[in-house]
Amino acid sequence: MKVFSEGANRGPDPTDDKTGNSRAPASNARALPTLDALFEPRSVAIIGASADPTRVSGRPVQMLKDAGYAGQIYPVNASRDVVQGLKAYRSLGDINAPIDLALISVPAAAVEQSLHECCRAGVGAAIIFGSGFAEVSEAGRSAQEHLARIARAGGVRLLGPNCMGMFNVASRAYVTFSTVFASNWPEPGNVGLVSQSGAFAAFCFARARLEGLRLSYGVSTGNEADIDFADCLEWLARNERTRVVIGFMEGFRDGAKLCRAFEVARAHGKPVVILKVGRSPLGIETAKSHTAQLSGEDQVYDAVFARYGVHRAQTLDELFDVARLAASGAMPAGKRLGIVTVSGGAGVLMSDSCWRHDVDVPSLPDTAIARLRTRIPFATVHNPIDTTGIVLDDRTLLPDLLATLSGEGGVDAVAGFYAGMGVSDAAPLMVSSLTAAAAAYPKVRQIACTLATPEVRETLWAAGIPVFDDPERAVSAFAALARIGRHHAQASIEARPAPVPLALPVGTHNEYTAKALLRELGIHTPQEHVAQTPQEAARAAEAIGYPVVVKVLSHALPHKTEAGAVALPLHTSAEVIAACERMLPPNNPALAGVPVEGLLVARLVRGTELIVGLHRDPVFGAIIMVGLGGIHAELLQDRALALAPVGPQEALAMIKTLKAYAVLAGARGQVHADLTAAADVVSRLSAALLPDGLSGIEINPLMVGAAGDGACAVDALVR
Amino acid sequence: MKVFSEGANRGPDPTDDKTGNSRAPASNARALPTLDALFEPRSVAIIGASADPTRVSGRPVQMLKDAGYAGQIYPVNASRDVVQGLKAYRSLGDINAPIDLALISVPAAAVEQSLHECCRAGVGAAIIFGSGFAEVSEAGRSAQEHLARIARAGGVRLLGPNCMGMFNVASRAYVTFSTVFASNWPEPGNVGLVSQSGAFAAFCFARARLEGLRLSYGVSTGNEADIDFADCLEWLARNERTRVVIGFMEGFRDGAKLCRAFEVARAHGKPVVILKVGRSPLGIETAKSHTAQLSGEDQVYDAVFARYGVHRAQTLDELFDVARLAASGAMPAGKRLGIVTVSGGAGVLMSDSCWRHDVDVPSLPDTAIARLRTRIPFATVHNPIDTTGIVLDDRTLLPDLLATLSGEGGVDAVAGFYAGMGVSDAAPLMVSSLTAAAAAYPKVRQIACTLATPEVRETLWAAGIPVFDDPERAVSAFAALARIGRHHAQASIEARPAPVPLALPVGTHNEYTAKALLRELGIHTPQEHVAQTPQEAARAAEAIGYPVVVKVLSHALPHKTEAGAVALPLHTSAEVIAACERMLPPNNPALAGVPVEGLLVARLVRGTELIVGLHRDPVFGAIIMVGLGGIHAELLQDRALALAPVGPQEALAMIKTLKAYAVLAGARGQVHADLTAAADVVSRLSAALLPDGLSGIEINPLMVGAAGDGACAVDALVR
Repeated sequence: MKVFSEGANRGPDPTDDKTGNSRAPASNARALPTLDALFEPRSVAIIGASADPTRVSGRPVQMLKDAGYAGQIYPVNASRDVVQGLKAYRSLGDINAPIDLALISVPAAAVEQSLHECCRAGVGAAIIFGSGFAEVSEAGRSAQEHLARIARAGGVRLLGPNCMGMFNVASRAYVTFSTVFASNWPEPGNVGLVSQSGAFAAFCFARARLEGLRLSYGVSTGNEADIDFADCLEWLARNERTRVVIGFMEGFRDGAKLCRAFEVARAHGKPVVILKVGRSPLGIETAKSHTAQLSGEDQVYDAVFARYGVHRAQTLDELFDVARLAASGAMPAGKRLGIVTVSGGAGVLMSDSCWRHDVDVPSLPDTAIARLRTRIPFATVHNPIDTTGIVLDDRTLLPDLLATLSGEGGVDAVAGFYAGMGVSDAAPLMVSSLTAAAAAYPKVRQIACTLATPEVRETLWAAGIPVFDDPERAVSAFAALARIGRHHAQASIEARPAPVPLALPVGTHNEYTAKALLRELGIHTPQEHVAQTPQEAARAAEAIGYPVVVKVLSHALPHKTEAGAVALPLHTSAEVIAACERMLPPNNPALAGVPVEGLLVARLVRGTELIVGLHRDPVFGAIIMVGLGGIHAELLQDRALALAPVGPQEALAMIKTLKAYAVLAGARGQVHADLTAAADVVSRLSAALLPDGLSGIEINPLMVGAAGDGACAVDALVR
Repeated sequence: MKVFSEGANRGPDPTDDKTGNSRAPASNARALPTLDALFEPRSVAIIGASADPTRVSGRPVQMLKDAGYAGQIYPVNASRDVVQGLKAYRSLGDINAPIDLALISVPAAAVEQSLHECCRAGVGAAIIFGSGFAEVSEAGRSAQEHLARIARAGGVRLLGPNCMGMFNVASRAYVTFSTVFASNWPEPGNVGLVSQSGAFAAFCFARARLEGLRLSYGVSTGNEADIDFADCLEWLARNERTRVVIGFMEGFRDGAKLCRAFEVARAHGKPVVILKVGRSPLGIETAKSHTAQLSGEDQVYDAVFARYGVHRAQTLDELFDVARLAASGAMPAGKRLGIVTVSGGAGVLMSDSCWRHDVDVPSLPDTAIARLRTRIPFATVHNPIDTTGIVLDDRTLLPDLLATLSGEGGVDAVAGFYAGMGVSDAAPLMVSSLTAAAAAYPKVRQIACTLATPEVRETLWAAGIPVFDDPERAVSAFAALARIGRHHAQASIEARPAPVPLALPVGTHNEYTAKALLRELGIHTPQEHVAQTPQEAARAAEAIGYPVVVKVLSHALPHKTEAGAVALPLHTSAEVIAACERMLPPNNPALAGVPVEGLLVARLVRGTELIVGLHRDPVFGAIIMVGLGGIHAELLQDRALALAPVGPQEALAMIKTLKAYAVLAGARGQVHADLTAAADVVSRLSAALLPDGLSGIEINPLMVGAAGDGACAVDALVR
């Protein structure tokens, strides 16, 4: 027996059938166990355990002892019978008892042998701390893959190499070597931590301990030869002790697997907050040089996180802030915030924060305002409420204000700026007011922005009230958690369009062949004709009806406008002929040497220009993009990405995130564009299955007419 | 005698002649003393001093005593001889000794009488805590202005009303009533604090004390009947004990005065960091309802801060972070950062931060890289340097790395991520390595990102090394301080163009009259002619030369394109006549009822479109704006503002801050625009003195040709 027959994670699970846990085993391997053996070990063997607790191979023994680990500790040492006061074993085979977790802490040359022993002994999971593998060289990568194959064949889950291990705060299993952990063992909590970086995991542990944020489990996945970020995230998402999962990530190889893990978290209502680094050119370069991750395009991660309701933290502070709010109480039902401050200035500051983070601050009902105005005549009582200093003189005021805001304010949380009350003799007033409000209005979260002594902090925490030093950070955390909550509350993600396989066009690709692909997807293109002479173009124009546009067709001409190969608007056959002659060589020097494949005559279509593209990301597969068209908008990077395919509703939501949405929605005398039609095009393009020879297809511009007039792909490009 | 004859601030001062301190007194007033009496009082009288230390009027007496204030404390109480153990006086007149500072802590009805007494007694400065003045009603405003007049006439500087007073940490003068101050008196430092909000000032004091950030002075200015934010900022900027000034501001009435204070700070090399709230609609609304400030347009504050090298903090954290870095050591000479981390992941995080905040991370020289590679073969050694865990085993490594980065890295600071070292048994290694590097390379700031015990924090601080929990915040603070330093290092601000008075055009204003104003400023406009008939327009077009543009002129038609009142390009006289007829009523229904003032025929000018505008801000006066033209760019709010006038260099710098700068600079096949000409136009327009009838003038578009081709105002509008 090596894994739990009934672990904490083994309740009924609606998503079990679609997740990585039940993936098909490799042909020559046994079915893989869950990660219970890693996260909830009832016994830990330390292979290579040193008698010296200051050494990497001695520290885990000392930590497990010192922390009071409740399970069995089996030091394995080839030459000692006792290690740090514990009975030691010459080999794993000598233990003769079930071993859930083995720590392989031996010189590099002996690692493989130890892993074979783990397989023979039926160990559930093994951890390799050592570095010098895939992060260093190709030879290291080969050695690492060899270890992974051994583990897989032997049915052992493998954590590492190049990692800092794991810890389980409740069972006090600290299977790690960082000196940060030693002593001062924290109380267990409900925040699970997954980090690809070991030092970062240790730092988070220490910082959480200092700030009183309580963790449940933590794990560093290192080189991810077997167990990876997604595995751990999914296990923590299913874990009953864990309410929120925070993660540190540099990149991930298997996009689909990561998405499955996020979906499990969503299905279990567990907020996930991730600090994903490698956003900048230097960051990506730095990441490459110290890990073996294929990182994929950073902006695509934003799209993935958005789809699964994962909050991407920009900073460590933010990671902790959202975790603190999520860990201390229920998810807020919405994004409506009540604000009470003992300083009018802080009220302005927090109003700005709400605006920045798209948090609603509903006004109090008139009756409540009228009543409060009799109590604090000089103060602002709409929401934000400024209590002024009177709150210290009239001790019934703060409880009343909090009850009014919570009970009548129509808010999902109340953030209060209590300045230094939590370190002054007014602390009891603040604490009793807050805990009373929290108890009386359990659906409204109370958030305290105050300086606070550890005791005040602890008392508030026990009542489900987190404390923040900086009101901006409190508002930002509330906004993030409310956003996650809205995402989780969606009954289901919109049904997505069925994939439409596209045939790879024969020969070279130009605008005309690209548009043929679009028509296969049901996307409108203008009425058009390929002519071979100016005269034929003029005849085609007569047939199509004026005004028309004429363009020179060539697979070697991606930027036609810059090359003077587009003429519009043309109103007569004479204009068409003149334009054709002007655009073609020898009259147009920009086209010297460019193979001309015809003259495309098309009905002129007007509207607002969008750009819509589908491309293949190496990690996450097909990605759909929509942005405002035109070179300016493109340079301004005003675009939205999503995992393809998207339904029309999600496509519309993407369009609404554009900075230029105001233009599309009819601001400043602009006609309201047919966004329904635009979203339909985005959705249809997103459903295309790109054939192997194509890396992407782009509509630029999609001409969007006024509401009801549809959208039309005026130009297109395949890559 | 009521002010210092030789105060700390009375050294030679190159800027004395231009600042508010020497402003002309009101005609019926004595010359106003400096604020020495407020900030460095040698004696404090408390008018209305209560025997009860828990009351607002008793607390200052207790605090002054308890803190150990070194000066004279004079309680004034009409009915007691002793107050809280101190000899009390029946009236101010009974004191018979110089009184630098008087605190008026009496009921509202008695305030005026007390202020008169202060004038008679020759008090230097008086503080009024009480609220209920301009922040409440017009009657309150009148009462407040009355008090200000009394003080001014009597030569007494007045702080408040509706404020929380001031504190001087070195002399332990705590003339305030907030309970946050009481007990646990901090050591004096070099960070000066000015806050319009009293509660905020108290909160900052408490937070600084908790975090070990040491303040020099703090003041809350409240309603600013006399002493205002700019006065205090300027005094602190001249103060020798103060190295950096932090401020909290909601708005300011006198833009020119604030600018003078910023310039004094700049001239004295004192960094200024301000948290200016009231950015959002709700924030502005909230600010209005609790203070009496005329706030001005928020974006204009950004422009003002940018001109004077003032850093605008977005959050409290940021305010403190920049202060911490500035207070702990010298200004960095540039924005080049060395990064060393004990976690590769943190190196990626910090690389992202540097990119986000425009911080340079220069690579180490090859020789240094080669040497380090022999020491840590598995690690990244370019900068960022990832030490890996070896740093704990080889204790000579960290000192070597820091010395190499500091000595050979060509950096202005080294930010190290030391994870939990500061709370582990590796703390001495970290501290000794950092202090050695700081001592050996005094021009390179050392910044520690680590968890740290108070002792470690204190030891590092003493060596000029600040500690940050969050590496992102360390990088952000470094970026801010480096930016301030660059600004201070500029020998002088560019000479600005002399103002050019504009004559208000007679009658109604349309595009043609607006362009006439531009020509007065030396700004090019296209060759053009106002015609009254289509036929005259055609003749004008023949004279000008094709292609031309024809527009309908009307003072009532600000958006001509939307009204179909612009035709271009026109190549023949027939086209001109046809276009005129199409654009005019009755053929153009959009112009029904619009008074037509002519047909403007102009040579068609092509180029990149900018928008350039000059408008009057109620607080700061003339503001110049430049942005990318076209409706999309306008809606995207891609614009730069500056205080007018600006020289051509500053104008060019404004253009370079635009998101669309890449378009102008020739990205993606675009022609490099004539930015010199564009900057010249911005500078010329900025020099215009708007006549009283005009609130603004706008060029939209300014058509910028290719480099060398100049820029031309194609359309213009006066408001």
